[in-house]
Amino acid sequence: MPSVSLEYPTKPFSKVNRYDSRASYSLETIHQIINSCPILHVSFTTPDSPFPMMLPMIGQMGSFDRPSADTGDVLDLYLHGYVSSRIMNLTRQGGDDSGGTKTEGGGMPLTIGASHVDGLVLALTPNSHSYNYRSAVLFGHATLVTELDEKNYAMELITNSVVRDRWRNSRVPPNKAEMGSTSILRVKVAAGSAKIRTGMPSDEKADLADEALLDRVWTGVIPVQLSMGEPLPGPYNRVEKLPAYLEEGRRDFNAWNEEAAVEAANKAMAPKAKSEET
Amino acid sequence: MPSVSLEYPTKPFSKVNRYDSRASYSLETIHQIINSCPILHVSFTTPDSPFPMMLPMIGQMGSFDRPSADTGDVLDLYLHGYVSSRIMNLTRQGGDDSGGTKTEGGGMPLTIGASHVDGLVLALTPNSHSYNYRSAVLFGHATLVTELDEKNYAMELITNSVVRDRWRNSRVPPNKAEMGSTSILRVKVAAGSAKIRTGMPSDEKADLADEALLDRVWTGVIPVQLSMGEPLPGPYNRVEKLPAYLEEGRRDFNAWNEEAAVEAANKAMAPKAKSEET
Repeated sequence: MPSVSLEYPTKPFSKVNRYDSRASYSLETIHQIINSCPILHVSFTTPDSPFPMMLPMIGQMGSFDRPSADTGDVLDLYLHGYVSSRIMNLTRQGGDDSGGTKTEGGGMPLTIGASHVDGLVLALTPNSHSYNYRSAVLFGHATLVTELDEKNYAMELITNSVVRDRWRNSRVPPNKAEMGSTSILRVKVAAGSAKIRTGMPSDEKADLADEALLDRVWTGVIPVQLSMGEPLPGPYNRVEKLPAYLEEGRRDFNAWNEEAAVEAANKAMAPKAKSEET
Repeated sequence: MPSVSLEYPTKPFSKVNRYDSRASYSLETIHQIINSCPILHVSFTTPDSPFPMMLPMIGQMGSFDRPSADTGDVLDLYLHGYVSSRIMNLTRQGGDDSGGTKTEGGGMPLTIGASHVDGLVLALTPNSHSYNYRSAVLFGHATLVTELDEKNYAMELITNSVVRDRWRNSRVPPNKAEMGSTSILRVKVAAGSAKIRTGMPSDEKADLADEALLDRVWTGVIPVQLSMGEPLPGPYNRVEKLPAYLEEGRRDFNAWNEEAAVEAANKAMAPKAKSEET
């Protein structure tokens, strides 16, 4: 546990300008949002398109040099996913000047987004509707992990993020072919920010003074959560009873997410800089 | 309903190169993924940063000219969200040549990503683990909607996507101040693609021949879904009984998502081009 709460530096590209009372630059907050998001959206520019590329990937914050590091410590983001060769090739080229993709301090510039919806905030008027949500964006430079030990560390980290304790309960370590066919990116984080909305609806004064409206429109929060359903054994499964680590992992996942959604609804909302809310 | 199934053109930047048997360019498929995603990740480049910007936004596919259009028809993407003034200013500048952001055919180039996790695919070995998922990426040019009727159309479309039928059950239409403070982007879509994984785990032959491994490791799919919890009335709510449209909307949302996750697990997997799966 770090003795001070660390924050990412605010850069022109990472500063939250709107509703900045909802912004956070805390490593702990940002890393927790990233780590609990099952799919991250990874974006980068290519020399041949006006559109940034975007790929869904799986990722976790970690420290290979200090595996016991806390969520609030300085960490790298390890990425793994359904990657076309495009991103891997660009990353390999990252160190040289062959492409149009600018590199700073080595590595390819990536932007990573993670968002959770915690609730639907239903107000008197559409303009005051909102979500309770937690979202984070990280900016950093990605390089391919080539060292086997680090690759193995990242694969274990990511596998256990999908289902707690799954790594040691499956066939490990990966063999040489598996290690060779797996690509892991290490992102050195340059900046990051989070934005969080909690609380109940907040309507405008004029609407709150409208008695007929208050009598007619239900207002409140419908909590939203990601949940795991009943496990479905596959065609060659022979383990009849669902192992305890899977059942407990699933139960905790559902309980934690439900609690987070309800807590978000009941937590006070950060004061707004402006009266509008949509 | 269009008489033929429309597809987006495959552009160099939109073509799916890996596991292309899982790719789809169908408008219907892509639009459904976008429409059912509560948060979209929107990315764009700025002249002053090597990192693409990324913002979580709310959006829906629609056609202002032909509101009765089918999901599989040619549609625009309407976006609304927690937008710093940055994106709106860049969009306003989109038509001229003042900035470094390239524009083609008017409007600012945006990339929009949407992803759903439908299940955790637990295989014998970490390398064969996967998600069942549906993800889509759209590439298009965004301009600010200035016409009031179109803005109103988009606001209704987006509000009703959050909770079915909410628009007419709240205080509408928005007043002049609300209309003025709301910014809506219309994205003309240039290209798009989707990627979908369904089915049970698929392990390598060597692992499937390992009897001890089969006896030890549970394999199958844990369905994952987004679900709505028990509605929580807000501090000034006076409507004691939850209105039927909210209760039914919630029930259908949960039932549909549960069904989708279980169906995805039980549906055959698209054949892979390569044997690897991670």
